[in-house]
Amino acid sequence: LDPVLDFIPEFLLQEKFEQYGQTFKGASKAIWEFNKSIIDEIQDIVPCVKLQLACYEMYGIKGMKVFSKTIEYAKSKGLLVIGDGKRNDIGSSAGYYSKAYLGKTLHLDPEDEGDFNVDALTVNPYLGEDGIQPFIEDCNAFKKGIFVLVKTSNQSSGQLQDLILSANGTVYEEVANRVNDWAKSLIGNNGYSSVGAVVGATYPEQAKMLRALMKNVYFLVPGYGAQGGSAKDVAYSFDEKGKGAIVNASRSIMCAYKSDKWKTEFSPEDFAKAAREEAISMRDEINAAL
Amino acid sequence: LDPVLDFIPEFLLQEKFEQYGQTFKGASKAIWEFNKSIIDEIQDIVPCVKLQLACYEMYGIKGMKVFSKTIEYAKSKGLLVIGDGKRNDIGSSAGYYSKAYLGKTLHLDPEDEGDFNVDALTVNPYLGEDGIQPFIEDCNAFKKGIFVLVKTSNQSSGQLQDLILSANGTVYEEVANRVNDWAKSLIGNNGYSSVGAVVGATYPEQAKMLRALMKNVYFLVPGYGAQGGSAKDVAYSFDEKGKGAIVNASRSIMCAYKSDKWKTEFSPEDFAKAAREEAISMRDEINAAL
Repeated sequence: LDPVLDFIPEFLLQEKFEQYGQTFKGASKAIWEFNKSIIDEIQDIVPCVKLQLACYEMYGIKGMKVFSKTIEYAKSKGLLVIGDGKRNDIGSSAGYYSKAYLGKTLHLDPEDEGDFNVDALTVNPYLGEDGIQPFIEDCNAFKKGIFVLVKTSNQSSGQLQDLILSANGTVYEEVANRVNDWAKSLIGNNGYSSVGAVVGATYPEQAKMLRALMKNVYFLVPGYGAQGGSAKDVAYSFDEKGKGAIVNASRSIMCAYKSDKWKTEFSPEDFAKAAREEAISMRDEINAAL
Repeated sequence: LDPVLDFIPEFLLQEKFEQYGQTFKGASKAIWEFNKSIIDEIQDIVPCVKLQLACYEMYGIKGMKVFSKTIEYAKSKGLLVIGDGKRNDIGSSAGYYSKAYLGKTLHLDPEDEGDFNVDALTVNPYLGEDGIQPFIEDCNAFKKGIFVLVKTSNQSSGQLQDLILSANGTVYEEVANRVNDWAKSLIGNNGYSSVGAVVGATYPEQAKMLRALMKNVYFLVPGYGAQGGSAKDVAYSFDEKGKGAIVNASRSIMCAYKSDKWKTEFSPEDFAKAAREEAISMRDEINAAL
């Protein structure tokens, strides 16, 4: 659910702009209605929603309120919520991020869960272990999860991640080894840890290798659909039982109503129904490829 | 200005908790008053304030409102504001972060500057160039700046950043070379670019080497004071004219009132005056070391 205004049907945007002006408030009202309608239509198809924090921060305080409301609404429908914030900092500040998204803020009423209480958060490993440890502690204390960026889906991901080390392997393999270490203490009955990894669908060869390397680690797989990853590509991120990966699609589902595939069948007013059909189609395609 | 509740004098926190309850609201009221008082006392001593986003996100929507108000207030006092968010993502999402903090949100009234309009933002390079480019474009369009994480101040920063490459040098040197490339197109009359680098005070040898490697790049130097960096350590991050670096101190200034150095001279009620004295002392120490 990365609801930038370009993805929202014109009729809905115009309606809110007419009512609230072409303002952050108007934008946020449109985004909220868009999110809510899509959640209603996909809640029985998908296990979780991923919210790209950048899309909400772009709309300021009002955007962050929609982020908060969307978390609550998705949870009320039984969905898990992944906050895609790629947060990172030195230990003390990483701890504050962790409290913001996974844990609880110190010195305040422990009953208050906070505004940004997601089930899992994406994190960036560039600062090493002391920037990851606070998240792991909150994963343990509050039954939450993290996904550490290992090999990202974008074109230039290799500039740093693929650098070859003098010792052996690449930077991303070294990160994968670290993720394995961090995952160890939080492996559940199903063999998977609360510490997961982000592995882009757009690099299937690397995904295959990383799947073998990180046996107890859930993969969060972006890059399916609009970014170019196919069902066959994402299949490498699953284990032999067809488990262990969460495949993300954003534009292909949110903008299904204006895609060549669905636009003759659905009007912009039926954007959420189009999203549902695309989610079903995606699910079936991936299941067929496993 | 990383105002977590542990840093705020007890009397101020109690006052707000009594008035608003031990809630996110009460916390935010205390944080806002703390920030405002410190800005009033240091605005003629320092050129800019750095706001650690994690500290504000930890207090939810209300915390983000304090973040927004603090930005406005610091600007009104003539200070530059650095948002320390270490943001990063693939190109499209990096663009949304850039619009949130440096640029302007598309499709909305261009007069509205948004809630999080800082002068510069810290960013994380793990995703490579396409995750940095959108920020560079907004630096150019809106006269803003970024600081790319190169060598961070924390203990485990070396786990990834110091990995030795088969080609030559380390990961952080490779990032420094990239930063040089990114900086090129935005070098101003004073020889410095809008694209800067984060180089921790806690690694003075690396800072010395990086200063020689990145001649047109401002350094944002965390790690002074509470984290252990001395004035002598940070001196390496300046050029031969004593320019080119911004040294950050957070705990040592914010908590000056309870430090051994100042606690006999200042009561907790005078926390902002103690911060002022510590800022002056820090400035003089650094100037003496240059």
